[in-house]
Amino acid sequence: MSIAVRIREVGPRDGLQAEEPVDVAERVRLIDALAAAGLHEIEAVSFVSPKAVPSMAGAGDVMAAITRAPGVRYVALVPNVKGAELALEANVDALSVTVSASPAYNEKNVRMTVDESVESVAGIAKIAAPLPIDAVVSCAFGSPYEGDLEPADVDALGRRLLDAGATSLTYADTTGMATPRRVDDLLDRTGIDVGLHLHETRGTALVNAYAAVERGVRRFDTSVGGLGGSPFAAGAAGNLATEDLVHLLDDLGLDSGVDLDKLLDVSAEVARVVGHAVPSRIAAAGPRSRLSSS
Amino acid sequence: MSIAVRIREVGPRDGLQAEEPVDVAERVRLIDALAAAGLHEIEAVSFVSPKAVPSMAGAGDVMAAITRAPGVRYVALVPNVKGAELALEANVDALSVTVSASPAYNEKNVRMTVDESVESVAGIAKIAAPLPIDAVVSCAFGSPYEGDLEPADVDALGRRLLDAGATSLTYADTTGMATPRRVDDLLDRTGIDVGLHLHETRGTALVNAYAAVERGVRRFDTSVGGLGGSPFAAGAAGNLATEDLVHLLDDLGLDSGVDLDKLLDVSAEVARVVGHAVPSRIAAAGPRSRLSSS
Repeated sequence: MSIAVRIREVGPRDGLQAEEPVDVAERVRLIDALAAAGLHEIEAVSFVSPKAVPSMAGAGDVMAAITRAPGVRYVALVPNVKGAELALEANVDALSVTVSASPAYNEKNVRMTVDESVESVAGIAKIAAPLPIDAVVSCAFGSPYEGDLEPADVDALGRRLLDAGATSLTYADTTGMATPRRVDDLLDRTGIDVGLHLHETRGTALVNAYAAVERGVRRFDTSVGGLGGSPFAAGAAGNLATEDLVHLLDDLGLDSGVDLDKLLDVSAEVARVVGHAVPSRIAAAGPRSRLSSS
Repeated sequence: MSIAVRIREVGPRDGLQAEEPVDVAERVRLIDALAAAGLHEIEAVSFVSPKAVPSMAGAGDVMAAITRAPGVRYVALVPNVKGAELALEANVDALSVTVSASPAYNEKNVRMTVDESVESVAGIAKIAAPLPIDAVVSCAFGSPYEGDLEPADVDALGRRLLDAGATSLTYADTTGMATPRRVDDLLDRTGIDVGLHLHETRGTALVNAYAAVERGVRRFDTSVGGLGGSPFAAGAAGNLATEDLVHLLDDLGLDSGVDLDKLLDVSAEVARVVGHAVPSRIAAAGPRSRLSSS
């Protein structure tokens, strides 16, 4: 399999986290369907407190019930050492952890200073090695609290997280402040061996992904249907939709391993499961190859 | 005034055409507000049959009532010689005409062959000279009927329209089939001294605009709020929103002459006038410079 662009599908975790709780059996079906559509890395669950995030309850049950497809990496988001322990018990293939480049956002989100979060990552790495740990740096393109952040500072946090034991980095545009120019500015610092996690808050996820692809970035987080949380208007501000990125990549001749038609079937099923239309425009209008019946 | 990127605002025509009729006084207020926000070229009206397009009735009244701002070009779309005569009587500054690169679309849209449409443009040019006439080639990035079109054929139609008397060309992605690669492919043929008219049908208007800007294209049609017609889902498939493009251009340091804050006020007013939220994401979420009140 020669994958040109690696997609980490985060719909079952980041997408469904923003929705009313979906039962374990439906989540298992979704994850298995995504693997069957060609996704080779799936953030399937997070091991967080079910009181804090009810829609992520039953993470261990989900992991136990999915069919492990060969070659697919099943990832769990973990907020702390306790979550990492549960993830290891559930036999996940990799972990993801999050620290914000915005001190104010980090404190509001996880009630820890950035230093404390980096320490927490070190603690997770200590028990999880040799599993891959991707550290997601949130608010990497600006903070709703502090405004623009210096790319040098964002990059420095990434390097600290590698020192703490993370094995790869993803930069997240948590509140939709990225632009092509700011993607360029950050990549000037970090290099292109990073993942990007882009949001549609300002309708810029695809243009930012394209700018990054043109620079040579080959790892992206996306969410089937474009599901995902945001403090802004429901249905219009989620994650970059997997089908929107695959549609673009296919047209550019960059293989992601994903079968777009199968993925669109999964997306339609996701809309049924969450009970509303998904934000993806490709899901709504169909791929460009679908001609009018005239 | 050193404008790096020229925007032709088509909201009063292409945008409102897709809405329930808005009365003349409101349309006049909108056009004047757009000029005050820094738009220097405004497709204000179309001289079409009011029976065929009720929302464009009163074009002459609109042109008579607006305040002609210095340096602003007021454009009328005209479908034929009769429309051009009315536009000239109304003292417009420039005309736009449309011919489709898709024979099937052209026949369905205006009940003429492409040859007949080119002839019609020649007739319009004969009576309108020396006014500028921009010929908009619709379905330039693919047809819902014929599928992909050869860039060479699309370019050849553009050249025929220049021969017929058009003074500039705009290529339109009428049904949202453009992609960055296909923008590149067409520009390889046409060169970059063209305008682009992009649609959001597949959520790709901004990424296509960015790809074109990177190639050096400096003329775009946009619609305030992203209003505009489409056979697809209402509110999700209009024109590239003026505020979305200006937000991108400002961040790239490319001046369009437009004041984004003033434009967002106009966009909010447009939402009130048409009675529903506009599709623009920047209108919904605000520009990235607006920080949370924390």
